[in-house]
Amino acid sequence: MDASSKPNNFLVKQKAFLKMYLFTLIERDELYGLQFQDTFEAELSKHGYRPSHSDIYKILHEMYASGWVTRTEELRSKDKDGFQKVIYYRFTDEGRQQAQAYKKLMKVELERCIGLLQKALQDNYS
Amino acid sequence: MDASSKPNNFLVKQKAFLKMYLFTLIERDELYGLQFQDTFEAELSKHGYRPSHSDIYKILHEMYASGWVTRTEELRSKDKDGFQKVIYYRFTDEGRQQAQAYKKLMKVELERCIGLLQKALQDNYS
Repeated sequence: MDASSKPNNFLVKQKAFLKMYLFTLIERDELYGLQFQDTFEAELSKHGYRPSHSDIYKILHEMYASGWVTRTEELRSKDKDGFQKVIYYRFTDEGRQQAQAYKKLMKVELERCIGLLQKALQDNYS
Repeated sequence: MDASSKPNNFLVKQKAFLKMYLFTLIERDELYGLQFQDTFEAELSKHGYRPSHSDIYKILHEMYASGWVTRTEELRSKDKDGFQKVIYYRFTDEGRQQAQAYKKLMKVELERCIGLLQKALQDNYS
């Protein structure tokens, strides 16, 4: 899992981008069931991007298989209709460390990509 | 050749990005031989991106095959060493129109991508 920029890198890959968002949601203890899909829908679709369920689950499965997160089934209150079962994802100690290191690299990578795209705007439209 | 953003688009594709740059260089009558490779090297490698020769030539070949550009061999002065043969690429009328339409869409697309990445910085690092 390498988020650093290689010499002929173009833009950040979708998988790295989603991983960063998932890490953030897990850090904030906000990641359960399908709620992250709602987060992406609401926040990112304004910017023309709508990741698929399967992309998200594949990454969560990888994190779980690597021992970076645990999964816990919990009951969550759901308006007046009572409760619903949801799956919470939480970091292991190892996962938390890995996620912090990854996110540090990803910040540099996002800034690089914004710089490249701004350069392109300047070169081609001024 | 569609540069518009589809519902689940992530970031602009490398091919569309290179095509935009090549269109701009041809518009400015600056596109010959390997000079565009130098342009990319000098300008874009600062942002960690270095496109390959073959990526660039594939696009130029497509443009030529579509009748969007002509190729002309010309002599160009080269310091004190005399002249060197270079291949100039220039638009046909059809190509110029297509390029203008394409670049208009690409501007919107670049701005969308910058917005998405800035949103990610804000959501994950503040």
